[in-house]
Amino acid sequence: MLAVHGGNTEEIARKYNLNSKEILDFSANINPVGLNENVKAAMINAIDKVVKYPDITYFDLKNSIGEFEKLDISNITLGNGAAEVIFNIVRALKPRKALLPAPTFSEYEEAIISVNGEIEYYKLKESNDFNLDDEFINKIKDDIDIIFICNPNNPTGCLTKKEFIRKVLNKALTTNTTVVIDESFLDFVKPNELYLSNDLLIDYKNLIIVKSLTKFFAIPGARIGYGLCSNNEIINEINKVIVPWSVNVIASEAIIQGLKEKDYIDKSIVYVKNEKEYLYSALKEIDSLKVFEPSVNFIMFKLLIDLDLKSELIKRRILIRSCDNYIGLSNSFYRVAVRTREENNKLISEIKNILFDK
Amino acid sequence: MLAVHGGNTEEIARKYNLNSKEILDFSANINPVGLNENVKAAMINAIDKVVKYPDITYFDLKNSIGEFEKLDISNITLGNGAAEVIFNIVRALKPRKALLPAPTFSEYEEAIISVNGEIEYYKLKESNDFNLDDEFINKIKDDIDIIFICNPNNPTGCLTKKEFIRKVLNKALTTNTTVVIDESFLDFVKPNELYLSNDLLIDYKNLIIVKSLTKFFAIPGARIGYGLCSNNEIINEINKVIVPWSVNVIASEAIIQGLKEKDYIDKSIVYVKNEKEYLYSALKEIDSLKVFEPSVNFIMFKLLIDLDLKSELIKRRILIRSCDNYIGLSNSFYRVAVRTREENNKLISEIKNILFDK
Repeated sequence: MLAVHGGNTEEIARKYNLNSKEILDFSANINPVGLNENVKAAMINAIDKVVKYPDITYFDLKNSIGEFEKLDISNITLGNGAAEVIFNIVRALKPRKALLPAPTFSEYEEAIISVNGEIEYYKLKESNDFNLDDEFINKIKDDIDIIFICNPNNPTGCLTKKEFIRKVLNKALTTNTTVVIDESFLDFVKPNELYLSNDLLIDYKNLIIVKSLTKFFAIPGARIGYGLCSNNEIINEINKVIVPWSVNVIASEAIIQGLKEKDYIDKSIVYVKNEKEYLYSALKEIDSLKVFEPSVNFIMFKLLIDLDLKSELIKRRILIRSCDNYIGLSNSFYRVAVRTREENNKLISEIKNILFDK
Repeated sequence: MLAVHGGNTEEIARKYNLNSKEILDFSANINPVGLNENVKAAMINAIDKVVKYPDITYFDLKNSIGEFEKLDISNITLGNGAAEVIFNIVRALKPRKALLPAPTFSEYEEAIISVNGEIEYYKLKESNDFNLDDEFINKIKDDIDIIFICNPNNPTGCLTKKEFIRKVLNKALTTNTTVVIDESFLDFVKPNELYLSNDLLIDYKNLIIVKSLTKFFAIPGARIGYGLCSNNEIINEINKVIVPWSVNVIASEAIIQGLKEKDYIDKSIVYVKNEKEYLYSALKEIDSLKVFEPSVNFIMFKLLIDLDLKSELIKRRILIRSCDNYIGLSNSFYRVAVRTREENNKLISEIKNILFDK
């Protein structure tokens, strides 16, 4: 699994003989506001609870998420990270064939492959800034058992409007296709009513929403994620393949506390919005970059000259995500996280240094 | 999943309208010595690391386990608890038919069912104190793809000698059967050379050992477990179905620290041995109980009179494990954990109170 994902600073540190703490990590998309103090305190308190198994029913956690999502807890399925939720969906539904936009988050593909499913890729067009278009809907045919749409898409940042998703769902109903919308980064968008699929859940029994709050609450090392679905049959099938106690008590307590932290949530949204605009503007000013419009806490760009920017930056102790292993992209594409002002300035300045040296 | 497992004090507290903290939990088998202070400190330190993803290769954790097990790290597969390791094995090997002793830990069955496998139960004989016997080996036929043996068995406490496991492995080689030995409680047995399968790993490519250190280190809420296997093909198949980042950073750091705590390990073994003997002796003195010889930190007994002992004890704020949902047992069987002297005395005294009232 070497370097398939971002955030692998330990691995990179070993490879380049660096101290991982010295690496400024722009390869993982974590809330730059950092860990909330009350969430941290909740996790420290939770350490005394690790001597017991997690509540196997996750009663408090599910109630907390249910309240946040305004949904009954019977519509919630939990996982050890959004990645496990994705795998559980696929393990439960055993799709023979999946339709995936390309590029997109690689775990959909990994999950489908793990159950020996076939994958049809729908190549998003650079000429259309990698946005989904109506042609995608035409690809939904009877043999497609499942579709994944990442909203906003990772790594492109493209948002898909709810009205487009409704069209996808309507077509998918005619082909008996399950539609999974991964909204793991959508909490960073505000207002997001144009994009949120939550209120489609009741009407569309072929819809599953996947969410990971760990990026937002800056706790990816703690592992937690969840799925939402109003179709009892699907929830029951997922429950059959689920491993008990999959969410650890520390992550559980972190999320219960985190969802109460309205100020932190609001502050994070504003902070990410401002820094995203700042970093986007600065990157756009660099001639040899084509920067795609970001929506959340990461930005994709294309390098218009022949250079291994990731290798050049790691020499300067900065790790960015090369998009060379995304289907539909090439080694000219990179993704960078939005971080703090000081860190963003460091990135901008080092990219400029590298490119102006050329 | 209601009450399928022990350790569900939150669920029981809601059911009986109790405060879960008031419940003395003899239903989960956790090291009564409790959380080691250095392990706790390592977990608290790890909280600052949750802002990053776990090292996707788990380099340090695998090295730590490799050193502890005296095995190369290529032989190690990690999981979010031993339960996930069991599920991963089954997801990877997709057995059509499994041979399971009964009674035994229910997750083998759950995992097999999750991949639609068939199960043949080998009923352990009460007349033989539920020990495995040669007849079990005769049941290993060509159609059996996988066997699970829990050593010591949960809930009976029966130990299986390595020489018996070698016979199972030899027969299984002739039938192309994978043998999974779950040694999740074997670290509590010392000396355990007669029982440990570790040194069979190199010779037997059809052997997988599953271990959970969370019972021993009293961190079941943190979730971690691992599997050991010298067969690269099996490890590769497991890697194909594994979810990335499945072990959270807190559990990872806890185990890395825990494996260094030799004094705690030694102290725990002695403590559990003494308390197990103490509780076993005391329970044996109660006329209406038939107590099975324990090997580790739990004891199974049969109640010889018609009474719902679990319900009677919960009125006294004590939770024990009814074995009524174990295949091969009935509602006369119970399992209790070995806890501290004071707690064990409380259990003994309350059982006596209940039975003497009859």
